[in-house]
Amino acid sequence: MKTAASESLGRPVLVQKYGGSSVATAEHIKNVARRVVARHREGKAVVVVVSAMGKTTDSLINLSREITFHPERREMDMLLHAGEIISTALVAMAVAAEGVPSVSFTGQQAGMLTDASHTQARILAVDGARVTEELRSGKVVVIAGFQGVTEQLEVTTLGRGGSDTSAVAIAVGIGAGECEILTDVDGDYTADPRVVEKPLKMPWCSYDEMLELAILGAKVLHSRSVEIARRFDVPILVATSFRDAPGTVICSPERARKEFGAMEEVSVRGIAHQKNVTKVSLVGVPDQPGTAAKIFAGIGKHEVNINLIVQAEHHGGKNDISFLVESSAFLRVSRFLDELVALVGGERAVVDENVATVSLVGEGVQREPGIAARMFTALAREGINIDLISTSNLMITCVIPKDRAEDAVRALHRELFEKGVVQEPRLD
Amino acid sequence: MKTAASESLGRPVLVQKYGGSSVATAEHIKNVARRVVARHREGKAVVVVVSAMGKTTDSLINLSREITFHPERREMDMLLHAGEIISTALVAMAVAAEGVPSVSFTGQQAGMLTDASHTQARILAVDGARVTEELRSGKVVVIAGFQGVTEQLEVTTLGRGGSDTSAVAIAVGIGAGECEILTDVDGDYTADPRVVEKPLKMPWCSYDEMLELAILGAKVLHSRSVEIARRFDVPILVATSFRDAPGTVICSPERARKEFGAMEEVSVRGIAHQKNVTKVSLVGVPDQPGTAAKIFAGIGKHEVNINLIVQAEHHGGKNDISFLVESSAFLRVSRFLDELVALVGGERAVVDENVATVSLVGEGVQREPGIAARMFTALAREGINIDLISTSNLMITCVIPKDRAEDAVRALHRELFEKGVVQEPRLD
Repeated sequence: MKTAASESLGRPVLVQKYGGSSVATAEHIKNVARRVVARHREGKAVVVVVSAMGKTTDSLINLSREITFHPERREMDMLLHAGEIISTALVAMAVAAEGVPSVSFTGQQAGMLTDASHTQARILAVDGARVTEELRSGKVVVIAGFQGVTEQLEVTTLGRGGSDTSAVAIAVGIGAGECEILTDVDGDYTADPRVVEKPLKMPWCSYDEMLELAILGAKVLHSRSVEIARRFDVPILVATSFRDAPGTVICSPERARKEFGAMEEVSVRGIAHQKNVTKVSLVGVPDQPGTAAKIFAGIGKHEVNINLIVQAEHHGGKNDISFLVESSAFLRVSRFLDELVALVGGERAVVDENVATVSLVGEGVQREPGIAARMFTALAREGINIDLISTSNLMITCVIPKDRAEDAVRALHRELFEKGVVQEPRLD
Repeated sequence: MKTAASESLGRPVLVQKYGGSSVATAEHIKNVARRVVARHREGKAVVVVVSAMGKTTDSLINLSREITFHPERREMDMLLHAGEIISTALVAMAVAAEGVPSVSFTGQQAGMLTDASHTQARILAVDGARVTEELRSGKVVVIAGFQGVTEQLEVTTLGRGGSDTSAVAIAVGIGAGECEILTDVDGDYTADPRVVEKPLKMPWCSYDEMLELAILGAKVLHSRSVEIARRFDVPILVATSFRDAPGTVICSPERARKEFGAMEEVSVRGIAHQKNVTKVSLVGVPDQPGTAAKIFAGIGKHEVNINLIVQAEHHGGKNDISFLVESSAFLRVSRFLDELVALVGGERAVVDENVATVSLVGEGVQREPGIAARMFTALAREGINIDLISTSNLMITCVIPKDRAEDAVRALHRELFEKGVVQEPRLD
């Protein structure tokens, strides 16, 4: 792919991001360096974005907890950003030791400008001038992921998983044509490989499908990185750094059509499930405009995310409104449930912790009407009761009993992928 | 002491530096925070300069060696400066947890501008504006020692022991009246406490004496920090962070006279010794002007430091020139010894590894003629042979056999300090 940067450098520009498990030890770092140098010697201008080594970030967090449970967010950023500086310097040394000139950059040096929302900063701009200059001089540029700097030179971090976001933003900032996220999983699968016996690797997945999969529990990439990639149409390859194996490309359907030759959309891209959810039902809520808005504004101000909303008719002009929250956030929600019931004039709140979701995700999931029927039939065949159903352009989600989640995923995978009908993902 | 900063802030400004052993664990860091907060509550504006925790720097160096034995110096700076960032953020958190607002700064944020000599950068300027601003708002400011930044925003470090230098430079930069170096030793002693049984703590020591002691083996402070303190006349208190005990003040003789009421200089401030030295003698060197210069220029270009130079008459218009080098540098010296002999037209080089130095240091050591005689007599009484003697305004050094070094120190300490004649240092 020709980009502004590749034309100005006379070489294609590649951004590679290596996660913590890929740089966990000196040996891992040398392995990363060999991979980077191989791409450099292929004639690419390589930018490497690095996470902190192994469990460094967790260790630093634990150290801070020995001191205080309420650190200033600014100080957490100061503390944690040191982890990526260490791994970045070591990767740069390892690349140089392989005979290729290299230079390490902090987020600041790489031009990663953010707002001042410490521990969850948003990227305002990436000034790729200095990175491009070093690439032009033939160097591999190694950049500390996860971190940025404000206009006032305050250190910020982008939140957990932020190195993915750094990598995509840097790819955009320097006009790189490719961005690779290298990690300990070798791509995205049609279902959780810990649950189904024969998961199939997706050769590609659209930005929208990936975002939906992430929301519904199949987290391979940080959603923010996918959102940035979508906005600027930068394809992301998710692959493993531990061996050579094809990964999954996340890109636009248009690009996939060109590169993968797919004439038609497949109906279902993958199956996601999540078990760490709790269902809250507000029963007997008067059917008036604005009720749902009240509920979600009320919850939102407590900074709790809602996963799924289903409204069903109760009786006598009243509705039941159900929603899912992450189980870890439920304690916070439980404190204002009565307040919430009063707010909407409902009868009572009912809480069910024994729930899970199982979802089919795909650009064609709604277009092909047979899919929903096959989903419900497959679950019925297993004797799995469906509590709620929610659909969108990209997904069909069923709320089912938590203890049947894995059975449901296996049944749906057999029905939709192992019969070889809906698509032809790779088996490797 | 009134300074520009203390007048502008309405409070006296104190810089405290805590070494690695003082911040080795979360518990140590909490202890440091309590000490800092106590000084803050006394009404001082406190700036804290912090080293990396315990053995962090060594661990990072070892990690780099697992990757390469020849890292770029720039990358070593990038790697190592992370250590101080971690401890600095943690100290700031611990101070805040004690209820006093605090903020941590990298070297860059603290305005520590250096040249680009990576791993041994020299300080060009300290812009104390941001630090002063935070002090004005009532915060304790915690600064990462050992590090700075170039005009091009490249990260630099000041070399080992550089946090002492940072602390003094920051004290100068913000116009602080006091600088405390808090460490695991509680001051400077009249002799190495591991050698003599009853060392006496010096209540004070002049800048020049401290520099001489450091060169001659009694290393309490990094010499660069003492040089900066001398140039700007900032008194340094060396004390321990582990308990409350008076330390040693390093200051000008004038200030000591005022503060300690000493009417007259003491003759001998302390005894230093060093065993990690090797003696090189160039025998039969023609007595021509410029010969010594040739030798030391020749050695200097190999970046080897020389400790002591003694020239003695040989015979027939020829001289023997002896000098000491650190034993660890001797291997490098040995490679160009023949070259050195040829350069000066000498007969041969003789190497003696079985040497040590023992030195008396004090502003009055030369002024009082009896001191030298007492030194030589005390050594003779122990049967310790003196190989070379060198004197300056501030010291008398004898080169003696390495295996008698401790005996010599004990004999001199008895003679000069335990008889209670030359000065009255504290015993606590």
